[in-house]
Amino acid sequence: MADAPDAQALRARIAASFDRQGLMTTLGATLAAVAPGEVRIELPYGPGVTQQLGYFHAGATSAIADSAGGYAALTLMPEGTEVLTVEYKINLTAPAVGEHLDAIGTVLKSGRTLSVVRFEVVAVTGDDRTTVALGQQTLIRIGG
Amino acid sequence: MADAPDAQALRARIAASFDRQGLMTTLGATLAAVAPGEVRIELPYGPGVTQQLGYFHAGATSAIADSAGGYAALTLMPEGTEVLTVEYKINLTAPAVGEHLDAIGTVLKSGRTLSVVRFEVVAVTGDDRTTVALGQQTLIRIGG
Amino acid sequence: MADAPDAQALRARIAASFDRQGLMTTLGATLAAVAPGEVRIELPYGPGVTQQLGYFHAGATSAIADSAGGYAALTLMPEGTEVLTVEYKINLTAPAVGEHLDAIGTVLKSGRTLSVVRFEVVAVTGDDRTTVALGQQTLIRIGG
Amino acid sequence: MADAPDAQALRARIAASFDRQGLMTTLGATLAAVAPGEVRIELPYGPGVTQQLGYFHAGATSAIADSAGGYAALTLMPEGTEVLTVEYKINLTAPAVGEHLDAIGTVLKSGRTLSVVRFEVVAVTGDDRTTVALGQQTLIRIGG
Repeated sequence: MADAPDAQALRARIAASFDRQGLMTTLGATLAAVAPGEVRIELPYGPGVTQQLGYFHAGATSAIADSAGGYAALTLMPEGTEVLTVEYKINLTAPAVGEHLDAIGTVLKSGRTLSVVRFEVVAVTGDDRTTVALGQQTLIRIGG
Repeated sequence: MADAPDAQALRARIAASFDRQGLMTTLGATLAAVAPGEVRIELPYGPGVTQQLGYFHAGATSAIADSAGGYAALTLMPEGTEVLTVEYKINLTAPAVGEHLDAIGTVLKSGRTLSVVRFEVVAVTGDDRTTVALGQQTLIRIGG
Repeated sequence: MADAPDAQALRARIAASFDRQGLMTTLGATLAAVAPGEVRIELPYGPGVTQQLGYFHAGATSAIADSAGGYAALTLMPEGTEVLTVEYKINLTAPAVGEHLDAIGTVLKSGRTLSVVRFEVVAVTGDDRTTVALGQQTLIRIGG
Repeated sequence: MADAPDAQALRARIAASFDRQGLMTTLGATLAAVAPGEVRIELPYGPGVTQQLGYFHAGATSAIADSAGGYAALTLMPEGTEVLTVEYKINLTAPAVGEHLDAIGTVLKSGRTLSVVRFEVVAVTGDDRTTVALGQQTLIRIGG
């Protein structure tokens, strides 16, 4: 079933920004799902995203979490708006080992100036899903 | 003047681990300075590390900050030890625009199990240096 | 209906520790609910817990959030164990105005050494409930 | 030597707000020092500010850290302005045991909308000073 027109427009708007993030291309991350207040980004495993023990690097985990959170906030804002990350906090709760990572950003509060987002990163291998990171992010709206 | 033997050995130990971090190679980051309790990592600007406005992506900024902090903690631990990031918090305090970023991790407390590190990321263009991120990190010692 | 014996024992164990927290008595906070992995603490409004505008002070909000989180972690540990807060991060998402605050700590990960807890603080006035703070906490197990 | 008139006026402005924070009175905290970009708050030890082991409660430590940070930010803003805490992160780095606590807030960045502050809390017994907490705080300016 095709997306409703609004859902398509929302996804297109987020994708247009995502595609300009050079880092996402460098890492091999893709925009997996876009809904109002929630965005998911996927990152496949490979030798280019690792730390010294061969796990996903916390920096790669954080990068997709930060983008998923930022885009989740952006879905609730009018066109022409940008959001910038003010700050975030992330706990790395388990070794990030898997075929790919799923970073899910979910808006907790969408304010006029500031938004607060929760994110979770899950390592996926086949049917097995393990939470590897949990965090909270503050974003500021620019323009719009 | 050459480094004292101890300084050389410390740098070699940190570099051996850094060189196994695939993500640092992918980003183009280098290990710029190693001293007891303090490590600096450099990241040159390029289209592969950007967000949608062409600044350094917060994920790239965070990745080198996290590595600089982790290696700063590791410099104060015996050989054969690893450290893993438990969590960190980072404020992005200015747009990350410059020829390169310097991420400096400085140990605030080196405990038997947990260490606490402060990091700062500076955007450098010629002689101009602007702080673009500030954070605090908790690490746990594994083995050793 | 009476609590099952285990639930009573768990509550008694947490209450015995809570009652030794002089700060909770000073603030007028009470232990409202105890379940495995989740604890709720209530704080009535009064002039002794305010900031300069007459709202609940972020320090009072944080104090009950920190205790709720710590006790939530403790519920999942064997008797004779203590937990200490390693660190936490809290967003104050709305002015903390109400008849009382409810701080709810919920364990996200209970590890052998470290636990990660999420907390939420809600301002309550009659039937109206407004989230005023959201955070994430890391705790370390001592002894036991 | 008396304070210069400007220093007196700054202190008076901060003190006027501090004195309206009911929680500071309840805890017994005092405004110990005010300078542009830096504020220190003292909290004497007593049974009313403890956790279950008799140390200063992390909530008491956080409360004075949050106030010291907020007032540090306020010193750099024009009269008639308020600041509210957006969020903060605090590491409790050692048991908070001592005759009193000193919480020192220091502005890292004072922006038009948002400020970033670092705080440190030190436990003092005679001449002995031990850092017990370290953190970073984001504040938003209201009015002015």
